[in-house]
Amino acid sequence: MSDPQRVVVLAHEKFPDHAKTATGVLKYADYDVVAVLDRDKPGTSTADHRRDLPDVPIVSSMADAPDADALLVGIAPIGGGFDETWREDVRTALERGCDVIAGLHYFLNDDMEFSTLAEEYGCDINDVRKPHDDIGVAQGKSADVDAEVVLTVGTDCSVGKMTATLELVEAAREQGIDAGFIPTGQTGIMIAGWGNPVDRVVSDFTAGAVEEMILEKGDEYDVLFVEGQGSIVHPAYSAVTCGILHGAMADKLVLCHESTREAIHGYESFSLPDLSEYVSLYENLAAPVHEAEIVAGALNTSNIDDDEEAAAAVEAYGDDIDAPAIDPVRFDATDLIDEVF
Amino acid sequence: MSDPQRVVVLAHEKFPDHAKTATGVLKYADYDVVAVLDRDKPGTSTADHRRDLPDVPIVSSMADAPDADALLVGIAPIGGGFDETWREDVRTALERGCDVIAGLHYFLNDDMEFSTLAEEYGCDINDVRKPHDDIGVAQGKSADVDAEVVLTVGTDCSVGKMTATLELVEAAREQGIDAGFIPTGQTGIMIAGWGNPVDRVVSDFTAGAVEEMILEKGDEYDVLFVEGQGSIVHPAYSAVTCGILHGAMADKLVLCHESTREAIHGYESFSLPDLSEYVSLYENLAAPVHEAEIVAGALNTSNIDDDEEAAAAVEAYGDDIDAPAIDPVRFDATDLIDEVF
Repeated sequence: MSDPQRVVVLAHEKFPDHAKTATGVLKYADYDVVAVLDRDKPGTSTADHRRDLPDVPIVSSMADAPDADALLVGIAPIGGGFDETWREDVRTALERGCDVIAGLHYFLNDDMEFSTLAEEYGCDINDVRKPHDDIGVAQGKSADVDAEVVLTVGTDCSVGKMTATLELVEAAREQGIDAGFIPTGQTGIMIAGWGNPVDRVVSDFTAGAVEEMILEKGDEYDVLFVEGQGSIVHPAYSAVTCGILHGAMADKLVLCHESTREAIHGYESFSLPDLSEYVSLYENLAAPVHEAEIVAGALNTSNIDDDEEAAAAVEAYGDDIDAPAIDPVRFDATDLIDEVF
Repeated sequence: MSDPQRVVVLAHEKFPDHAKTATGVLKYADYDVVAVLDRDKPGTSTADHRRDLPDVPIVSSMADAPDADALLVGIAPIGGGFDETWREDVRTALERGCDVIAGLHYFLNDDMEFSTLAEEYGCDINDVRKPHDDIGVAQGKSADVDAEVVLTVGTDCSVGKMTATLELVEAAREQGIDAGFIPTGQTGIMIAGWGNPVDRVVSDFTAGAVEEMILEKGDEYDVLFVEGQGSIVHPAYSAVTCGILHGAMADKLVLCHESTREAIHGYESFSLPDLSEYVSLYENLAAPVHEAEIVAGALNTSNIDDDEEAAAAVEAYGDDIDAPAIDPVRFDATDLIDEVF
């Protein structure tokens, strides 16, 4: 990915609740978001819609956006296609010399109009969901790096693994720990500005795609926090989870869960096993490749309104998994760092 | 894949010991192999080289081969490339109107000379390692089919999972059981004449690639035997193993092992865990998606010369995994069928 400084984020009609990538980038990316595009909310600010977000103006279109060096597509329709109502914004961006960053299944580089404009105006189109061609089979070498490796694992998809990972990185850095982030999914890649989309590589290369990143960054940091994906008990996505577990060769695991989740999201006939069962599943599966211990839990309590109730849920979760637990968004992730190290 | 009747198998300089695909096809495919190409051994017969193979003439080149409707590439160089010394044979085959079947990483359909010849002579080129475009995410529905599903799982790669699966299918059929074979790798696909190369699909679709096949065949048979891949403790390939385990939603597992294996093949610093550990790893990992029990073991004793010693190894293996065990190639797979059902 290019290294943008000033970014406009496209989130038409979806900001903030259905714009996970947009809000993730706003909260965690190092570059400046200078505007959000949402044609339903021009004239408002991102902070008007969610108080935990930085104060960024919302405008109707790229034509109204301030000076920037990249346009980032911060939403994805079901199926990952390109919404034709976005075409004018992408065209305007390229004509203004902005790079375009997208994580769609539809690769913008394969769009003739966009690729022609990009060449004409000297811009890059970054399709972050397209794996690079050199990813190959894992060598089993991730444990050789200097850094300690901490991996977030989950009870299901969409429980907050990426957010927990990024909160852990920030909290670690605040405590003076030299911490790096290893992104494995499209939003993580857009936030970090680099990374392999592990769920899109050839299945034989799943572990290799993670290992490549660990070997690249593992001697630059004292600790690497690896973004996990899926769940080891997911009927569709467990392969990716297993490949990341063995490819990362993590020393420590943080088990992420969403407080109201009882069945696999979208696969409601599959109940989640007991929370304690996850601890033995992940630890026993990791061990033959590299010993790893679940050292902490991260509970996503965003579905609980009351703070006291949320705190009680966190405590109960810690008891269930027999490890210290926190909601790193609602409460202070610093406590979790003390437990992890 | 096309449905050939008379097949020539290319195995130049590698037959039989480094031609796993060629020997697998000779032993297990329903179609007739009418000749093997090995320029080092013309005038001999396959049975001269290995007594368990049917008696098929070996010739130097496609020009010397009898009438056939397909040429199958039965060897793969390291890296999966195309060996240019095979070009004349492939050209001759296409000019004779034969289809060409290959499982290389290099897709013969992308070779301009071959694709032009195929069109000119009305032949198909089947690159079995290229997944079709409609493979998608698993729905968690494999358990809905009528057939009982039996999956081979392994302690490592290359321990004999495909062979054990095919022996089980044959033994089951001999006992009058209506058994189907679900291939997941290139050789299995070439033997069966259809199937998804699960190790080459997008990682998110690993389980889905297996599920698609189970749903397609699951109401046609009373039992499906699914060819496993890799091992759940493999540093590089465990993702594929895990995806097949959850995608197949198997009712019963057969644990395959090679009698002299002590470390992961090619990853010698990774010792195999205790054999009993595999039983709990596979069963515990399967359970949250679909309960599965290791009902039998298949031990590959091809590295043991003495029959009595091999029998003792099989018995010890059965004790280790606390399940009935057999070497289905060396001894009679029928015994194993009795145990599986």
